[in-house]
Amino acid sequence: MSPRSRIGLVIVYTGLGKGKTTAALGVVFRAWGRDMRVAVVQFIKSSGAYGEIRAANKLGIDWTTIGGGFTWLSKDIEKDKALARQAWQVAKDRIASGQYEIIVLDELTYPLVYGWLPLDEVLETLRNRPQELHIIITGRDAPQELIDFADLVTEMREVKHPYQRGIKAQPGIDF
Amino acid sequence: MSPRSRIGLVIVYTGLGKGKTTAALGVVFRAWGRDMRVAVVQFIKSSGAYGEIRAANKLGIDWTTIGGGFTWLSKDIEKDKALARQAWQVAKDRIASGQYEIIVLDELTYPLVYGWLPLDEVLETLRNRPQELHIIITGRDAPQELIDFADLVTEMREVKHPYQRGIKAQPGIDF
Repeated sequence: MSPRSRIGLVIVYTGLGKGKTTAALGVVFRAWGRDMRVAVVQFIKSSGAYGEIRAANKLGIDWTTIGGGFTWLSKDIEKDKALARQAWQVAKDRIASGQYEIIVLDELTYPLVYGWLPLDEVLETLRNRPQELHIIITGRDAPQELIDFADLVTEMREVKHPYQRGIKAQPGIDF
Repeated sequence: MSPRSRIGLVIVYTGLGKGKTTAALGVVFRAWGRDMRVAVVQFIKSSGAYGEIRAANKLGIDWTTIGGGFTWLSKDIEKDKALARQAWQVAKDRIASGQYEIIVLDELTYPLVYGWLPLDEVLETLRNRPQELHIIITGRDAPQELIDFADLVTEMREVKHPYQRGIKAQPGIDF
């Protein structure tokens, strides 16, 4: 592929359906297969024995999970907010470093929606990134300005969900 | 997780948007991280230097790609049909073997929609599979009977696509 055909894309996986983080992980898998330099920064999620974190550790993929596992029942919003800002600092460093070809910002939309991170600053960071760097952003309720800015946006629409029938989250599938 | 909580799910990623195969690859990544036994059978696609095939080779993941790279310009439909049936035979063998915890049937919807594989037989094979086996099916236009049968269905809806602006498919992202 000629250098001129290479363009860094901003890709957003949003919507209420399942498959947003999973699709970002698929990009990681594909890119790892090509020996591309990939980094993942996870917002919100607490680190834990997720299948994807185990895989990243085994493969030596640059992976950062900074979050308190925020839910609406979270007791310390100020702490969650500080963790989101800390994760964003890591993301900015990774982006500015020029060391990566693909960076995943998993669940970035939540701190944007909650107002914990300034959208303007995020958009400016994306705008000023290295030209060939792809960014994958996941999470529900992607702000309209982010959608306007992105190159590729897919909405994951929930057609049918097993938890409606009381089936629990399954290892390897959901986490 | 107690044995009773483990239930094999049939998951369908459909719709016109990007991210269907990519999400299936994300499940492969996650499951591989958990040392689960995963097999992938790709319909339609021709084998080639895809990032995902490179990754699977490197990781020793059971991966079968049988297809002529079918397009609407395909010159030999009978051959494409025969390849789809061959891929389905591999899929049936993998399912019946009891050797896997997750099996991806990538782009299975196309031979179903084209009438190359009997939907009844596919549904019966899914119904009679080992109880804890998860099946992930991808492709546009999933037949309604398949949606009715599945446990989890996400429609990938195209909100914005860079090829609308003439940007070419990017390695690591699209293939």
